[in-house]
Amino acid sequence: MSQERPFDLLNKVIGQQVLIKLKGGASIRGKVTSFDAHMNIVLDAAEELDGGELKAKLGTILLRGGNIIWISPV
Amino acid sequence: MSQERPFDLLNKVIGQQVLIKLKGGASIRGKVTSFDAHMNIVLDAAEELDGGELKAKLGTILLRGGNIIWISPV
Amino acid sequence: MSQERPFDLLNKVIGQQVLIKLKGGASIRGKVTSFDAHMNIVLDAAEELDGGELKAKLGTILLRGGNIIWISPV
Amino acid sequence: MSQERPFDLLNKVIGQQVLIKLKGGASIRGKVTSFDAHMNIVLDAAEELDGGELKAKLGTILLRGGNIIWISPV
Amino acid sequence: MSQERPFDLLNKVIGQQVLIKLKGGASIRGKVTSFDAHMNIVLDAAEELDGGELKAKLGTILLRGGNIIWISPV
Amino acid sequence: MSQERPFDLLNKVIGQQVLIKLKGGASIRGKVTSFDAHMNIVLDAAEELDGGELKAKLGTILLRGGNIIWISPV
Amino acid sequence: MSQERPFDLLNKVIGQQVLIKLKGGASIRGKVTSFDAHMNIVLDAAEELDGGELKAKLGTILLRGGNIIWISPV
Repeated sequence: MSQERPFDLLNKVIGQQVLIKLKGGASIRGKVTSFDAHMNIVLDAAEELDGGELKAKLGTILLRGGNIIWISPV
Repeated sequence: MSQERPFDLLNKVIGQQVLIKLKGGASIRGKVTSFDAHMNIVLDAAEELDGGELKAKLGTILLRGGNIIWISPV
Repeated sequence: MSQERPFDLLNKVIGQQVLIKLKGGASIRGKVTSFDAHMNIVLDAAEELDGGELKAKLGTILLRGGNIIWISPV
Repeated sequence: MSQERPFDLLNKVIGQQVLIKLKGGASIRGKVTSFDAHMNIVLDAAEELDGGELKAKLGTILLRGGNIIWISPV
Repeated sequence: MSQERPFDLLNKVIGQQVLIKLKGGASIRGKVTSFDAHMNIVLDAAEELDGGELKAKLGTILLRGGNIIWISPV
Repeated sequence: MSQERPFDLLNKVIGQQVLIKLKGGASIRGKVTSFDAHMNIVLDAAEELDGGELKAKLGTILLRGGNIIWISPV
Repeated sequence: MSQERPFDLLNKVIGQQVLIKLKGGASIRGKVTSFDAHMNIVLDAAEELDGGELKAKLGTILLRGGNIIWISPV
């Protein structure tokens, strides 16, 4: 195993914007407030995107980790 | 890990309205009564929504956590 | 976590009618006889519904918890 | 939790006919010989049904519990 | 729980022909060499069937238990 | 349980060619270098096949066990 | 079990380019920064590919291991 671990990236993006790709094709963008070991994540000012277009403003959301494909700081 | 955790958001919304996005596309709106570590949630005055439109009044429901994509206070 | 838990609702509906929404779209209505920690449930006088219409009378059934989206007292 | 548990129903139907609804739509009818905690079940004289019609005689089968939606004594 | 268990059937079919129905619709026929607690099974002289017709001769295969719907001695 | 176990087959095919059927229909052919208890497998000179036809040369790959339907020595 | 294990390959590709095939058909290419026991992987300069064509530049991503079919050094 490597010394640095994937969850270190989540620690670094607390308070920052991320783009999250979900199973099924939708994406969510928002500011990370907290996360846990299941990759459940709370986002502030979350927005649902579809094909890069804003689809809905969601406000604060708790996203279940099991639906996530990838998370990227933006 | 962050000090604040995603489940703290659930504690804060006890007694409040939330919107829950489910796998498969449907959404449920209702007032949170209780939840557990699997994110199973009891909602009062729950309503099923489809494309933002009211589809059915469900009353009190116990929703299994495994079907949830995200939860948002409304 | 809240003091009251989602499974408390199941304890309250023992002997009562519930409507259960299943993954895949079907619904089951019946009287709860017993349940366990996996949300496996035994229903008496169970009926399968499709779009609110009675599709089949099933009698007593043991329903696996993993197929359930939500349970609602009726 | 209730005193009686869902698996008690399986104990009662040992040696009896049951109808089992599977994920994907098919049903299996047969006489229960044994079961375990994963709801894996051995049926004798099992028959595959499709829309209530006999599709295939399967003889003795070991059915994996994870594929089951519900089990009903017939 | 019953005294006899579903895995007893697998012990009895070591060295014998079985038909295995897989998720997704295909079936595999072959002679059981070994199995484990996850229902992973090694078959000799395995054949893939589609609608009862021979589709491919596979020789010896290790089949993952998680893909199995049912197993039947033939 | 039988004395011989399914994973014994994987030990025997270290350094040999196998054909692996994946969920979703694709197949992978390659030489087994290593495996673990989750059936994660490293293959050298791996090739992706579609309907028996060579679709892509993949070189060395680490294949997640959870995607495997069956593995066969060739 | 073999002496060498599949995760050894991940240790060797730290700092190198890999191609990752995801469930659902998409592929991701990028430089491995870290990984963990669930095969969660952080990639730098990640790119999403579709049918071999560059579809999107993603920058740094944390990819959940559960969505991976295979990983190949390139």
